[in-house]
Amino acid sequence: MQTPLPVGIVGITGYTGMELLRLLLRHPGFELVAATSRQEEGRRLKDLFPQFMDQPAAELEISAPDPKRLAEQCRLVFLAVPHGTAMDMAAQLLDQGLQVVDFSADFRLRSARVYEEWYATSHVQKDLLSEAVYGLIETNAQAVKQARLVANPGCYPSSVLLGLLPALTRGLIDPDSLIIDSKSGTTGAGRTAKMDTLFCEVYDSFKAYGLGKHRHTPEIEQELGQAAGRELQVTFSPHLLPINRGILSTMYAELAPRTTEKSLQAAYADFAREHDWVRLLPPGSLPELKRVRGTMFCDIGLVVDQRTGRLTVVTAIDNLCRGAAGQALANANLMTGQPVSAGLALEPLVP
Amino acid sequence: MQTPLPVGIVGITGYTGMELLRLLLRHPGFELVAATSRQEEGRRLKDLFPQFMDQPAAELEISAPDPKRLAEQCRLVFLAVPHGTAMDMAAQLLDQGLQVVDFSADFRLRSARVYEEWYATSHVQKDLLSEAVYGLIETNAQAVKQARLVANPGCYPSSVLLGLLPALTRGLIDPDSLIIDSKSGTTGAGRTAKMDTLFCEVYDSFKAYGLGKHRHTPEIEQELGQAAGRELQVTFSPHLLPINRGILSTMYAELAPRTTEKSLQAAYADFAREHDWVRLLPPGSLPELKRVRGTMFCDIGLVVDQRTGRLTVVTAIDNLCRGAAGQALANANLMTGQPVSAGLALEPLVP
Amino acid sequence: MQTPLPVGIVGITGYTGMELLRLLLRHPGFELVAATSRQEEGRRLKDLFPQFMDQPAAELEISAPDPKRLAEQCRLVFLAVPHGTAMDMAAQLLDQGLQVVDFSADFRLRSARVYEEWYATSHVQKDLLSEAVYGLIETNAQAVKQARLVANPGCYPSSVLLGLLPALTRGLIDPDSLIIDSKSGTTGAGRTAKMDTLFCEVYDSFKAYGLGKHRHTPEIEQELGQAAGRELQVTFSPHLLPINRGILSTMYAELAPRTTEKSLQAAYADFAREHDWVRLLPPGSLPELKRVRGTMFCDIGLVVDQRTGRLTVVTAIDNLCRGAAGQALANANLMTGQPVSAGLALEPLVP
Amino acid sequence: MQTPLPVGIVGITGYTGMELLRLLLRHPGFELVAATSRQEEGRRLKDLFPQFMDQPAAELEISAPDPKRLAEQCRLVFLAVPHGTAMDMAAQLLDQGLQVVDFSADFRLRSARVYEEWYATSHVQKDLLSEAVYGLIETNAQAVKQARLVANPGCYPSSVLLGLLPALTRGLIDPDSLIIDSKSGTTGAGRTAKMDTLFCEVYDSFKAYGLGKHRHTPEIEQELGQAAGRELQVTFSPHLLPINRGILSTMYAELAPRTTEKSLQAAYADFAREHDWVRLLPPGSLPELKRVRGTMFCDIGLVVDQRTGRLTVVTAIDNLCRGAAGQALANANLMTGQPVSAGLALEPLVP
Repeated sequence: MQTPLPVGIVGITGYTGMELLRLLLRHPGFELVAATSRQEEGRRLKDLFPQFMDQPAAELEISAPDPKRLAEQCRLVFLAVPHGTAMDMAAQLLDQGLQVVDFSADFRLRSARVYEEWYATSHVQKDLLSEAVYGLIETNAQAVKQARLVANPGCYPSSVLLGLLPALTRGLIDPDSLIIDSKSGTTGAGRTAKMDTLFCEVYDSFKAYGLGKHRHTPEIEQELGQAAGRELQVTFSPHLLPINRGILSTMYAELAPRTTEKSLQAAYADFAREHDWVRLLPPGSLPELKRVRGTMFCDIGLVVDQRTGRLTVVTAIDNLCRGAAGQALANANLMTGQPVSAGLALEPLVP
Repeated sequence: MQTPLPVGIVGITGYTGMELLRLLLRHPGFELVAATSRQEEGRRLKDLFPQFMDQPAAELEISAPDPKRLAEQCRLVFLAVPHGTAMDMAAQLLDQGLQVVDFSADFRLRSARVYEEWYATSHVQKDLLSEAVYGLIETNAQAVKQARLVANPGCYPSSVLLGLLPALTRGLIDPDSLIIDSKSGTTGAGRTAKMDTLFCEVYDSFKAYGLGKHRHTPEIEQELGQAAGRELQVTFSPHLLPINRGILSTMYAELAPRTTEKSLQAAYADFAREHDWVRLLPPGSLPELKRVRGTMFCDIGLVVDQRTGRLTVVTAIDNLCRGAAGQALANANLMTGQPVSAGLALEPLVP
Repeated sequence: MQTPLPVGIVGITGYTGMELLRLLLRHPGFELVAATSRQEEGRRLKDLFPQFMDQPAAELEISAPDPKRLAEQCRLVFLAVPHGTAMDMAAQLLDQGLQVVDFSADFRLRSARVYEEWYATSHVQKDLLSEAVYGLIETNAQAVKQARLVANPGCYPSSVLLGLLPALTRGLIDPDSLIIDSKSGTTGAGRTAKMDTLFCEVYDSFKAYGLGKHRHTPEIEQELGQAAGRELQVTFSPHLLPINRGILSTMYAELAPRTTEKSLQAAYADFAREHDWVRLLPPGSLPELKRVRGTMFCDIGLVVDQRTGRLTVVTAIDNLCRGAAGQALANANLMTGQPVSAGLALEPLVP
Repeated sequence: MQTPLPVGIVGITGYTGMELLRLLLRHPGFELVAATSRQEEGRRLKDLFPQFMDQPAAELEISAPDPKRLAEQCRLVFLAVPHGTAMDMAAQLLDQGLQVVDFSADFRLRSARVYEEWYATSHVQKDLLSEAVYGLIETNAQAVKQARLVANPGCYPSSVLLGLLPALTRGLIDPDSLIIDSKSGTTGAGRTAKMDTLFCEVYDSFKAYGLGKHRHTPEIEQELGQAAGRELQVTFSPHLLPINRGILSTMYAELAPRTTEKSLQAAYADFAREHDWVRLLPPGSLPELKRVRGTMFCDIGLVVDQRTGRLTVVTAIDNLCRGAAGQALANANLMTGQPVSAGLALEPLVP
């Protein structure tokens, strides 16, 4: 057995940091040696996350982020700070010779112009944009293996891309007809204290939000456009579910001329066969969020409606694991020469 | 003050019966004098619904359904039994001279052929189909006032029709482009013991179901088609929310040529002005289910996306009240010469 | 019909303010003419509470609190600001000739010393302590009718007192044996943004908190001690339920010598007979929170365990309505010569 | 690496069977080779539990229970059928030379008379009662290692015993003063379709049930009595939480004369030191159910109230894992010579 590789987390206090910690505790190839947070400096991980109080690793003391010190301690750093802040920190960490998996949006969009338009922030590390690899495991594994800087995909885009790429890549659906209706658990809104995400505001209710202007829209369009071989625009409608984890996306597309149900089933079956974490449900079955809870799976259900000439694709992922921390860890596995699934054989917790 | 009119409920044991009872307890113009259930015959209402144990009306003894006896006691009957069973019972009640508001699907579809195709049951009361009035308050109030038999709309169709009729009636959207993504609370699945709707199966999860084959599809198509002046077909995708009450429908349509945002806002503003229970939210605001909990409101939010040329309409209703028992009571109000809103000035319970 | 009396709310932004608004909208005898909040000054009620957007009363503009101005507008003011702040504001409002119902703890404890010990704040309006009436409707209605200043009971104490007073007053249980295990919905934690009460912190979990040091302890001991005719101390254990509304208290007491089950049933039956909002369940039945949702009811279940010689009492109330805003309104009814139940005939919303 | 031992599950369809399956999928020392259910015979595990559809082990076909066949296939069988049914099946499996871990209550009570009184069923395998080992890992590990038949503890008793044994064994609390207020997630009610456990009946509510007559009472009294060295009786009050997993028990006891807070802390600290899955929280901290979700942990919080002379102990466990399937697996580990924790290093899933 090899010595585990030392890694760090910059920005440990949110839900993605917490999830990454859960996954690292059981990972055979990584050891968490540094965790940073400006507000929580000096406390121990177990003080923030008492659920891990018995774990030796949770004795780790939280430090203020210091790129030089991190470089001395770590080989690779997970960067879980807000967009805007992440770009400079990433640059500093790379300068110190570290590999970086960035959870933020700062390096996901290849166009600085598009980034600045949707995020209303100047991009001050434009040089890194062409180097950063978009870390969707199923499509970019080869590039990730060579990467210094991986932009970890957004949670919504992860659920959307895995559902539309198989059909789009084979030209089976009309790229101009895509409508995406996504529903996310509330961990997606983060762990910062806000009135809008208080228990009593969210519980026993449901709402749409950010229609037509959610920041994951250009990311979805970029990646789908690349698969389609041309620019495209989607309608993307996020909703907030009164549950903790999970994104279920229901996606609608017009069938391309001559597309058959058989060709669609084949496209998705091939995709699922090539990618262990993609599970295509048998015809007539549809995904449920609980079946992917705590895991890397993306479950996919297909409905071809002959009456209307439309394809409906439903995907389910765990936004915190598959859509954030787990995918980041899979990227880190690839970046360090480990099997993509190292430490990620996770069974769904049902119920 | 006038003597309240005597009414009965056939099929009291489900969630719609329970909700109707809640509303009747405070209604000034109706008195519940009969409640029937074969399985619960002989028990009192308060035994089934202890939440009302202090109400004198909850002392009522549940009887087996007997049309003749109901006719002696009541002027109007709410029929809350399953489709298939309802059609014969309705006929018998009408024969006895009673007015009937039917909660089932048996008289909602004007075409017996379409009914038999989607419900896999013979329609044995075809003569009543032309007489029955589809009881969507906002569109059919005049006809309801004259009706002996009202088919109370389905819960999903109520949420859909109020959201699409204003644009469709004025020709502002393409009738062939309609995609409806609906999310319903679990009361919509009924109160019968089933493994699928156990707490631990539904809680902390979310799923799509019945895509492309839900029985509310032809009802939606019939009513939208009538508004559009021609046949049309929709994609209708229901989902199950882990909450009790409420349906939120997110609906997508291509704008018709020359449709402006202004014309759309005007169409919905006019509709809301004419109908007290329709509340159009200001631009930028979107509905939340909690804001209509326990009420007759249909909240509507509009998003016109210039990038994609699409309209997104979001509606929120309480499926048990507005989508079932409350709407039935509004119909009964009209059928008995009372104001449509009698007993239905309900404030949302938030949180 | 009489002209409604003008009332105001100081501190409208929390859940109790929101609930009071819901109840005032349907109250026949009060008209809300002033609502204050320093942070929200200038906005309209409908901006904060869109669920009431259709109500004319929700057009009211929120103002900064100004005792003189409130006195010109109102006859009575509901004071819903934090303890410590409330005492001075109450004094100013009384000076202006207003009647005051105070939601805070500032006037609930008759002993300034006990207040200062548990709340770690100086009491600067000690003169008002002897005048203030503890507004538990079932025990103090006569005093409330004469009061200028009513201290509205805490939510936990409301659920506890109604459950223990009947037995304690008649000497049927040992005053030194009282153990109170209470479980509250999360609205009890308020509407201020805090990490601890975020949806994802509370959902799908359950915890005890504040054992042995919750500030409602001295209030409970004061009122129970008065009923017992001597000082007593209780063990009080609050817990946080992942639901919105409701407090269920399970209370344990040793039977006094010679206490029979019959004498206990009689004590509670008499209490329920005298007080419309107290509902004693038949033997073998136990309360459920949903059955009191949105109402003034306190449901009580009794279990006498002959094996152990103990009485277990279970009570259920809605903490926001019965335990806060509804009880405040009942007090206001009495203070203004109206029937105690005016505007408070509320049916439970189930499910 | 050794060949995994073949095991079977009799009665796979409930939540405990589902949880056991989850745990066996990752267990290095066991291989599931047989799963039985009369109703589901012929289907595959993945049909019942689609969350495991990608696992080769989920291809296993469900068979009807046949002791002889099970003996040919397995070394040890987990028996997850209802009490009453379990006793005969256990006898047959033992006759075939199998080891048995029984989830039911049939062999938990050493007295057939007490069993028959509380379960209203004749005990027809009395001979096995003296042989059966009560499988609470922390107290009976040595006996379990030698056992043919282990009675897996009930979920409530597991949460109670771990909380009271440390103090009771050392004589620090009065054995006649024990009051136990437990709150359980709804998986404890099983997976059988019943109206009472439908989502809409349980959600957004809370209730007490079975006060004074829950069948786990004699099991608790037997084990506590043994620790105290004499018979005792407890007040045990179960409640139903609107969540999936977890039992939080709040327990009250009078301090014995001369008991100090220090002696109590020492007793629990020693207990936690000796048992890896017992986690004593630091003074001032209290357990939360989410922190043990999906794990074997029992978190314990202590409050010594000098005012009242009482100890309050709060424990949190996962009822499905620690309180049922996980504990059964730990017992099976011991019965087959494996480390008790084999396959049970589980991280809490938060949130």
